[in-house]
Order: sequence, then C-alpha cells, then structure tokens
Amino acid sequence: MALLDFFRQSKPTTAQLAKERLQVIVAHQRAGNTSAPDYLPKLQKDLLRVIRKYVKVGDDAVNIGVERDGELEVLELNITLPSQQ
Amino acid sequence: MALLDFFRQSKPTTAQLAKERLQVIVAHQRAGNTSAPDYLPKLQKDLLRVIRKYVKVGDDAVNIGVERDGELEVLELNITLPSQQ
Repeated sequence: MALLDFFRQSKPTTAQLAKERLQVIVAHQRAGNTSAPDYLPKLQKDLLRVIRKYVKVGDDAVNIGVERDGELEVLELNITLPSQQ
Repeated sequence: MALLDFFRQSKPTTAQLAKERLQVIVAHQRAGNTSAPDYLPKLQKDLLRVIRKYVKVGDDAVNIGVERDGELEVLELNITLPSQQ
C-alpha cells in the first residue's frame, strides 16, 4: 500500500524546496454477494472537483492510480500543490 | 498508519457476514513556510457529502479520525455501508 510513499519519495531537504502535497485514498471493500455498480470512477471525479474548491491544481499535478485485490479496490489521488496559493 | 486496518479488524468469516466498507484517507503535507489556512475540516464535510451521493450512510456509520504529525495531517473517514442498497 502506497500511503505516504508519495510524501516520502521526494522528501525535501530544505524548507525552500518543500512542496505542499495532498494524497487522497479511497478504499472500497465490496461485500461478497453484492452486485452494486462500481461508483469509484465517478466518485474520483467528484473528489477532484471538491479538492479543486480549495486548491488550484492543474491536471498535470494530479497522479491517479487504482489497485484491485479481490473484493478490495483502492483509488489513489496524489496531488502536488502549487507552492504559492 | 491505519490504512486498511479498518477492513482487517473485522474480517468476515462468511459471505453472509460480509459488510461493504469504504475508507477515505486524506493526507495533507504542508510546506514548511506556508501560512495557508487549514481546509481539511471543510474538505471532510464536502467529501462526506460527495460520498452520500453514491451510498446511503447515516452519521452513526461514519467514523472520523484526524492525526497530526508535524507538517503532515491525516484525515480518515471509515464508513460501513448498508448491506442492502
């Protein structure tokens, strides 16, 4: 699981190099017998829209990944925020 | 970090007992010299509102936690979804 790897992988060495970052992880475990539709793709778009209410981020600052492991689906949004807001 | 502990801690033994769960984690690392306001509390409310577009969850099905570690702030929403939607 990649939680916080996003932060660790490029740890700033000086305050000047420090970037503000935001990571959103959505993990969805389905019940074994469910036939509920997968709403994660839509949820992902809505989450990004909500985040953009608070911070200005371009598409190239957003890294999106999805992992599946059986009934567990994990959506990950990694966002590097602009240094001056 | 509690990612996926939410799922592990009550692993169902039969399909009948399986619950659908959703975990949302928002990790926010501030830059060292930022004085940006903390938008996580508002973001948290908006995220819940977005999630409720897709799943019906009562307040008692939502467990919210916040952890702070220096410049890193982690918001966690653990949601147990109704078995029949």
